[in-house]
Amino acid sequence: MIAKLILDKKREGHALGSAEIREFIDGYTKGEIPDYQMSALAMAICCRGMTERETADLTDAMMRSGRCLSWDVPTADKHSTGGVGDKLSLIIQPLAAACGVAVPSLTGRGLGLTGGTADKLETIPGYSCSQTLERFQEIAKTVGVSMAVQTDEICPADKKLYALRDVTGTVASIPLITGSILSKKLAEGAGTLVFDVKCGRGTFMKTPDEARALAASLVGGSRAAGRKATALVTDMDEPLGFAVGNANEVAESLAILSCADPRLDDIAELCIEFAARMVALEKGMPVDAARAMCREKLRDGSAKERFVAMVEAHGGDLARFETLLASPTFKFRVQSMKSGYIADIDAEKVAKVAFALGAGREKAGDRIDPLAGVTLAVKHGDKVSVGAPLATLETTREPDELERLAADLLKAFTITQEPVSPRRLVIEAID
Amino acid sequence: MIAKLILDKKREGHALGSAEIREFIDGYTKGEIPDYQMSALAMAICCRGMTERETADLTDAMMRSGRCLSWDVPTADKHSTGGVGDKLSLIIQPLAAACGVAVPSLTGRGLGLTGGTADKLETIPGYSCSQTLERFQEIAKTVGVSMAVQTDEICPADKKLYALRDVTGTVASIPLITGSILSKKLAEGAGTLVFDVKCGRGTFMKTPDEARALAASLVGGSRAAGRKATALVTDMDEPLGFAVGNANEVAESLAILSCADPRLDDIAELCIEFAARMVALEKGMPVDAARAMCREKLRDGSAKERFVAMVEAHGGDLARFETLLASPTFKFRVQSMKSGYIADIDAEKVAKVAFALGAGREKAGDRIDPLAGVTLAVKHGDKVSVGAPLATLETTREPDELERLAADLLKAFTITQEPVSPRRLVIEAID
Repeated sequence: MIAKLILDKKREGHALGSAEIREFIDGYTKGEIPDYQMSALAMAICCRGMTERETADLTDAMMRSGRCLSWDVPTADKHSTGGVGDKLSLIIQPLAAACGVAVPSLTGRGLGLTGGTADKLETIPGYSCSQTLERFQEIAKTVGVSMAVQTDEICPADKKLYALRDVTGTVASIPLITGSILSKKLAEGAGTLVFDVKCGRGTFMKTPDEARALAASLVGGSRAAGRKATALVTDMDEPLGFAVGNANEVAESLAILSCADPRLDDIAELCIEFAARMVALEKGMPVDAARAMCREKLRDGSAKERFVAMVEAHGGDLARFETLLASPTFKFRVQSMKSGYIADIDAEKVAKVAFALGAGREKAGDRIDPLAGVTLAVKHGDKVSVGAPLATLETTREPDELERLAADLLKAFTITQEPVSPRRLVIEAID
Repeated sequence: MIAKLILDKKREGHALGSAEIREFIDGYTKGEIPDYQMSALAMAICCRGMTERETADLTDAMMRSGRCLSWDVPTADKHSTGGVGDKLSLIIQPLAAACGVAVPSLTGRGLGLTGGTADKLETIPGYSCSQTLERFQEIAKTVGVSMAVQTDEICPADKKLYALRDVTGTVASIPLITGSILSKKLAEGAGTLVFDVKCGRGTFMKTPDEARALAASLVGGSRAAGRKATALVTDMDEPLGFAVGNANEVAESLAILSCADPRLDDIAELCIEFAARMVALEKGMPVDAARAMCREKLRDGSAKERFVAMVEAHGGDLARFETLLASPTFKFRVQSMKSGYIADIDAEKVAKVAFALGAGREKAGDRIDPLAGVTLAVKHGDKVSVGAPLATLETTREPDELERLAADLLKAFTITQEPVSPRRLVIEAID
């Protein structure tokens, strides 16, 4: 009866009360409110929206459906809405840890075109993202950073609701997306949250306006829950870095942590922007000073050291990872058909090829090929001549439809006669 | 997968294709599409609406989920969206039959404040609304009119969807209401459909604009399905006639059919308006001529004769009904506290008292007290003095909270010092 009144209210576009939202989410988590009422509410929220206060209440109710961690040391986490070649967490989290902020980071396995952070990390032989929450907390405190997957104890309401939204056309809603992302991040207990809201063809927020709205919702929701928070809206029209896949992204992250390739300096700078905000907010210091500290901790190897220590604490073996990278694979190089400047690399097209090669997962439980993926040979603005390599497709065995995949990948590149202006990775900061 | 795409499309406010609507409704009827997807679509339809073409497709898909009857004689039916004291079907249907148009009328049991037409008819001892479709067709053809409840063979999709809408806050939607009403009426197979769309406090369309929109949708949908159709938007701010209940409404209908009470002439005229439209459209004659014919068939007893024949054909016994009416009951008279003119009788307040006395049904299967109800002693515009009877509460036994019910009923009446303008029953004709 209460559920029906709540549904009527949201259908008519009215704001729900805090107790109403809590009751609905509690009832749903316990199985007292059936799926067909929850999906109707989710659709009404998609169509009618929610106020900031309602979104905060929804997030809070979802957070409280499971365990909530707490910390006695400074803690921060960065969350990305996900993009193509987005290996930034692998660099940012140990970098912030090297600056003295503990980073307890619960992450997800990927679903869709590309693997998630957990899938990337688990290409390191032995690395296990499945840790108890106790062990997760212990690693975060002793090593300074832990990256593991959330257990069933964290936000059971979100797990149930997300599965339902996935099959009822109710994914596209800023309040629901905010509730889903934020409830898990708040349950981690970190004092500071920094959001990377991706915007462009390679992610689900296609326009800057949509991305800005989600960023503002995430920051507002975090603050409503008493956390320090900020967000950057970043460009996701083109892949980040050269590697799109899983093991190749880990290798690229190690290169960035080792400051080994000046062509990756733009990605390193982007990582510094994020880590600096985590450090500045959590330690209460100016962003400029935090930026300088991050730059130093990256250059002097402290960040890489934290990454290596984290890998070891999760059972990973980087020597065996080197062996994996050196193992024989099927490779096919795509070459430029004309000369000119790289004006555009369509992130979505690249991701679709990487997915077809085996780098992604169609449904939960599918196996990912750790070595499958695309490695770009060029970046935005590069000058190329006819026959120059543009990218390499890689898998453990020759793919079906290689010809079509190579043609599709070639279509991702736009080459112009005139030099192009450089790509700007940060679109806007949302404070 | 198809269901998800359809949900995305409607969530974004786009029109669905005919095949998409058919597939969704078919899938839902067969149990292939689960409740949680149907409820999400219903909510999206509530929020985003449907075009006329989509509504026609939805209606058609629901109609085709079950048996569809056909006729080789002229047929018409009137449908009312339901109001307080709305016994009009009991007069209109036999009146149209008396004019030579067969009336196959599948009706419903009531849910909510007042009984449905079937509940009222079944207060006549022996009358059974539960007939096979074959017997229903036989009675309609031989007697000229049959009023029975729809069997499970008619529109199973509607039965399933209505139950779901009832618990998911998705009742309030003109396309969904149209689909529900019209699919059943179209399945009856009548050539002409006339709609009485009630408007006011005593029904669910509260404003003339809402009622007009529903009327236009019902008429448009009927024509899209190749039927002749028209609608009247009628006033439902005050009860229709004096009797609000079940057996007392049948008794009042018999009085109207017998032209026994000039104070019921306004209701008789309203019935003539509806019956005349059924006859005019189905026989292709001018409304004025049809109106004259109806007036004559009411006056000369032909309409009453059809009613009596219909009651007999359904097993009813009017002699035993007279005995029932004469049986001892608990009665309580509410008197006027001031003198003046009856300016308003709040239909909703009257209905709530009748419901509390036992005239309605909270959930399917609940028993209705045939003798419970309210009988008004006055009508709009009447002059009353202090102590004059306003209404009588009646049940088979003394109700709990009699004092509160009498006070609530008294509150339904507004008495003014100045004479009031007469009530206009027909607000607008929608052709």
